[in-house]
Amino acid sequence: MEKATINVKGMTCGHCEAAVTNALKELSGVSEVKVHLDNGKVDVTFHDGKVSFDQMKEAIEDQGYDVV
Amino acid sequence: MEKATINVKGMTCGHCEAAVTNALKELSGVSEVKVHLDNGKVDVTFHDGKVSFDQMKEAIEDQGYDVV
Repeated sequence: MEKATINVKGMTCGHCEAAVTNALKELSGVSEVKVHLDNGKVDVTFHDGKVSFDQMKEAIEDQGYDVV
Repeated sequence: MEKATINVKGMTCGHCEAAVTNALKELSGVSEVKVHLDNGKVDVTFHDGKVSFDQMKEAIEDQGYDVV
């Protein structure tokens, strides 16, 4: 398992937190997600090889947020 | 039909807009809802007698926002 922190712009409320969390957790290979609304950071624990950073980035962007 | 504008605190994004809009539209007697995120105002068209201001206020507060 690998851990990464992704910087996301535009998350403002609990609904945003849920949207990003659920989108990431739906990806096979992602096991844990923790969104920090105060600083726009998303901690992800994932299985490298099963899911790529690009896939996680795309899942977040599909919800309407920017990965910065 | 009556029109009212409700001042709501804490709506920040499209998800908030959807949550408040849907909660109000689920009330029998509410026909139109327009959320203005920029100033926190919610325009409601409703059938007075079928739905009360208190019911609309409660529906908004149940979603986690404050009516001010």
